[in-house]
Amino acid sequence: MNAAVLNTSKFLAATAEVDGAAIKTLPNSRKVYVTGSRPDIQVPMRAVTQADTPTMFGGEKNPDVFVYDCSGPYTDLNANIDIRAGLAPIRGKWIEERNDTELLTGPSSQYGIERLNDAKLAELRFNLKRTPRRAKAGANVSQMHYARKGIITPEMEYISIRENMHREHYIESLKQGGKTGAKMLDLMMRQHKGESFGASIPELMTPEFVRSEVARGRAIIPANINHPESEPMIIGRNFLIKINANIGNSAVSSGIGEEVEKMTWSIRWGGDTVMDLSTGKHIHETREWIVRNSPVPIGTVPIYQALEKVDGKAEDLTWEIFRDTLIEQAEQGVDYFTIHAGVLLRYVPMTANRMTGIVSRGGSIMAKWCLSHHKESFLYTHFEDICDIMKAYDVSFSLGDGLRPGSGYDANDEAQLSELRTLGELTQVAWKHDVQVMIEGPGHVPMQLIKENMDIQLKECHEAPFYTLGPLTTDIAPGYDHITSAIGAAQIGWYGTAMLCYVTPKEHLGLPNKKDVKDGIMAYKIAAHAADLAKGHPGAQIRDNAVSKARFEFRWDDQFNLGLDPDTAKDFHDETLPKDSMKVAHFCSMCGPHFCSMKITQDVRDYADKLGADNDTALKKGMEEKAIEFVKKGAEIYHRA
Amino acid sequence: MNAAVLNTSKFLAATAEVDGAAIKTLPNSRKVYVTGSRPDIQVPMRAVTQADTPTMFGGEKNPDVFVYDCSGPYTDLNANIDIRAGLAPIRGKWIEERNDTELLTGPSSQYGIERLNDAKLAELRFNLKRTPRRAKAGANVSQMHYARKGIITPEMEYISIRENMHREHYIESLKQGGKTGAKMLDLMMRQHKGESFGASIPELMTPEFVRSEVARGRAIIPANINHPESEPMIIGRNFLIKINANIGNSAVSSGIGEEVEKMTWSIRWGGDTVMDLSTGKHIHETREWIVRNSPVPIGTVPIYQALEKVDGKAEDLTWEIFRDTLIEQAEQGVDYFTIHAGVLLRYVPMTANRMTGIVSRGGSIMAKWCLSHHKESFLYTHFEDICDIMKAYDVSFSLGDGLRPGSGYDANDEAQLSELRTLGELTQVAWKHDVQVMIEGPGHVPMQLIKENMDIQLKECHEAPFYTLGPLTTDIAPGYDHITSAIGAAQIGWYGTAMLCYVTPKEHLGLPNKKDVKDGIMAYKIAAHAADLAKGHPGAQIRDNAVSKARFEFRWDDQFNLGLDPDTAKDFHDETLPKDSMKVAHFCSMCGPHFCSMKITQDVRDYADKLGADNDTALKKGMEEKAIEFVKKGAEIYHRA
Repeated sequence: MNAAVLNTSKFLAATAEVDGAAIKTLPNSRKVYVTGSRPDIQVPMRAVTQADTPTMFGGEKNPDVFVYDCSGPYTDLNANIDIRAGLAPIRGKWIEERNDTELLTGPSSQYGIERLNDAKLAELRFNLKRTPRRAKAGANVSQMHYARKGIITPEMEYISIRENMHREHYIESLKQGGKTGAKMLDLMMRQHKGESFGASIPELMTPEFVRSEVARGRAIIPANINHPESEPMIIGRNFLIKINANIGNSAVSSGIGEEVEKMTWSIRWGGDTVMDLSTGKHIHETREWIVRNSPVPIGTVPIYQALEKVDGKAEDLTWEIFRDTLIEQAEQGVDYFTIHAGVLLRYVPMTANRMTGIVSRGGSIMAKWCLSHHKESFLYTHFEDICDIMKAYDVSFSLGDGLRPGSGYDANDEAQLSELRTLGELTQVAWKHDVQVMIEGPGHVPMQLIKENMDIQLKECHEAPFYTLGPLTTDIAPGYDHITSAIGAAQIGWYGTAMLCYVTPKEHLGLPNKKDVKDGIMAYKIAAHAADLAKGHPGAQIRDNAVSKARFEFRWDDQFNLGLDPDTAKDFHDETLPKDSMKVAHFCSMCGPHFCSMKITQDVRDYADKLGADNDTALKKGMEEKAIEFVKKGAEIYHRA
Repeated sequence: MNAAVLNTSKFLAATAEVDGAAIKTLPNSRKVYVTGSRPDIQVPMRAVTQADTPTMFGGEKNPDVFVYDCSGPYTDLNANIDIRAGLAPIRGKWIEERNDTELLTGPSSQYGIERLNDAKLAELRFNLKRTPRRAKAGANVSQMHYARKGIITPEMEYISIRENMHREHYIESLKQGGKTGAKMLDLMMRQHKGESFGASIPELMTPEFVRSEVARGRAIIPANINHPESEPMIIGRNFLIKINANIGNSAVSSGIGEEVEKMTWSIRWGGDTVMDLSTGKHIHETREWIVRNSPVPIGTVPIYQALEKVDGKAEDLTWEIFRDTLIEQAEQGVDYFTIHAGVLLRYVPMTANRMTGIVSRGGSIMAKWCLSHHKESFLYTHFEDICDIMKAYDVSFSLGDGLRPGSGYDANDEAQLSELRTLGELTQVAWKHDVQVMIEGPGHVPMQLIKENMDIQLKECHEAPFYTLGPLTTDIAPGYDHITSAIGAAQIGWYGTAMLCYVTPKEHLGLPNKKDVKDGIMAYKIAAHAADLAKGHPGAQIRDNAVSKARFEFRWDDQFNLGLDPDTAKDFHDETLPKDSMKVAHFCSMCGPHFCSMKITQDVRDYADKLGADNDTALKKGMEEKAIEFVKKGAEIYHRA
């Protein structure tokens, strides 16, 4: 049995059906679709149903909470999931209608043609029936191009609805709840004002706002015309902070089926985009399966595949091979490319005295190339040629930070900041072509240098979205770098980073398995949400308030279900108090049934109601007088207990 | 079989020996003791031995790295551990020498006497042969009292040595390493300047500095004269940030043996103090076993036990019962007491309109008491009586935040800040008595409100050390609150908090097991260290640099062993690359053996060396000229590969 057949069998076993856990919806949740201005704009959200407040706490109805949902049709019980057919091309009609693209007869990259004609790969191949699409000659099909022409695309409208998270509907539900609803509205909607560091998030997201941010370059919509299956999303600091999950096999581990499953697993828990960083065999075929089944944008680092094509010899890379790889991947539907065009020859020796040199794989490939050829890389010299490819398919740049620090010691050094400035120059070149750009960032940065890094990026890169890896705030905890970096990610997100690339517990040690992927995503959903709260995102606090209220009212199941990971929360609770009856008990395992602080708080609330606690004047009259009031009005409250 | 006997058997089974994992030292580590000005000052540290740098990276020796070590004799392979005998009273002689205390004939609390005379408890009881000690009439035995009199106690000297972490020795090792050592010294010691927000950590810690900080009230040394087994440590923002681990059984779970084991487990991973929050049976006996075997300070919340004595009826609590409990616990050796003396009657109604009311158990007990009696609590009215007890045993105050917020929504509200101001007033009362004080803080605070909370605390509480629980930065992740709160803890630590109380993944859901305790401690060691780095602590970066250098040089075992959790790091690595030979391989599982960015970086370094990269002028001459140099001097480097 040859290697390809062996891999095929393994692959078939793994993808015959998507893992059961990934297609179930979460408990007490249902998929809802909000319809836009045209019937084919159907924006998915997850509605979490809540129980009524127990009578002793007031007995009011608790409205559904709407949660941003990037899990795609996999969590829609009415959807017909067939991995072999891929997802429905929900953007297909929008792309066609714009009438600025043409269908090719087949792949136009040399490599794409070779793989298609290789009979040995037939069993491995995703059976895509449509051919690739490309901009008509001279046309520019980037969302930025439309935005700058003043066009609001269906993608933009879709995003505006998605980012609002049905907040208006939620408020309306509270308003219709009578007196109790009004009280709840007051309690739920009062928010702590965040500190935005220059971000400016509108109370209600409009399609026009989405358009203007994309036109300005402050946000991107990664949406390759060859990935019509993707549900539009936006990356920019005036929107919800997004997170990316990396998947991909390497030379030493993992197969195709496993990677597809990692993708569905990632988006189930909240990965907003997925990067396929495969370096092993069958990169091309793996990617096709991932893209066809992914409702979220897919990013890649094309130089990784180009390197495979020259047997790992960085110095043998050429512009022609790289160009062919870009076209190959663009025609498969990759939504953004990490391109390390800022690794300039003169920056390379700046890394020599570092603690940890060059740690970016792409960065070191390009450094080796530059030194070997004694000239600037083809990524830099052919940058405008790359732009021409990007705008023909609407692939976004993720300008790679090849010289990012590999330790806190090296943070914000000359090499890193020199490259960042060059990325800023390249951003302007890309924008000249109406090509969308985000900028990649570190990495390893101690807390006190995070703000500086963010501020420099905003300035030098003209507010193009920042997309950082962590950063890790200390290097002493291998095995826990999802935590060392979630600390940094929350801060840099608050300061203005638009997307956070997750770090798993296996960082620096090995390849993540499914548990690691979930742990990494959880840490990053937390970091992103903490930052959204701190920035004062109008919709962010609704979910916190709902969890807190459920917690206070001992609605255990609601507390679990409104959280990021209902399964784990429930399991943890059941370890101490396993009985079902405990899930409705008005106490928890910390204090036990005999005494409960939450219960006392409710007594205080009843008491204050009687007192007329809202009467501030009375409240401030001082203790003596109050003591008398207490005796008169409240003494029986506690004697009753 | 009655409950006591049942518990005894269970207890014996659990403590016949300390769990194997807790007494082993960590890999490649050994316990070292640094001797002070007198031979009985023996300050423990953990020395981590490193391998030499591989020849291809320069082949230099890597000196031992010294790590702050709170694990006590349990990780000293030469120590004779016998849980039934307890630890050696290393401070006994120092306390005696001061000649300001007297031995009592037995416990002087009524409850302590009762328990001692209860024959049914004989089997449960720790067999302590010495009697309690108390200050002579009129004497004040607090470390603050000595400090203010200008006395440097052995405890203070011990702490100064401990806080330096043998940094001078480490630097000396590098200096004696010849040319390589000098290069390393330069590479290792250059540090990013932190931002201290008013903290001022000296380059070299002196006994006098320790004394002055304690005298000033900016730091405390929790060191009850009845806990002579404790290894002196300090809590203050000009020192290393400390972390506390909570243990304790509740009415629904857990026995004595399990709690003692949790203590040894906590300190193994880095818990600097342990709070015993038991609320179940045999609180008194459990505590005795914990204190006798604990090398770290033990804190309690005496009101919890007082409440047990009145069968859980808060309104039945009296000053007399509370006073007796304080003396009972002080004579057992508890080092700090959480006392919620700031819950004033007029603050209670301020919590009525909160999202989550009163969530502190102690706070709700006192709120209930105040409302029931229509007067200020005995904690407040008898505060100076409490001070008299504290100074007779040197118990430190941990002034409890009974009105802390239970959700981000309630953060920094009127109730919380009013109580904080009262705690500031009480701090000055305690200081009048030379009693040591720290202040407890939240809880749940979104990121943008953390700095404000810290600043108010410093101002209102006159820089008394802040001791916070987290804070959690979002409420949407039950099951992951070690992470939601590590984000807040790192920030508030940076801004000036002296000790961070850990939060485990089980927070809000159930009681932590051993895994949860370790996960909580790891998250908090990370937060504390990230904050120490950000503050620019002189010794903090040594360990980060050592890990980073080991990582860069593919010294896998050193990377594991220098980290916070060598076991987990090694296990994670071995999952992907299990073979032993892989631990010396110069590649990792991310890129595989074929291509490695670290390897390329080394090529760059060799290259720059040839180029004379240190010659800045040459470096800046621009690219064209450099290209020529590359051709002349360096081309063969890469053709060799």
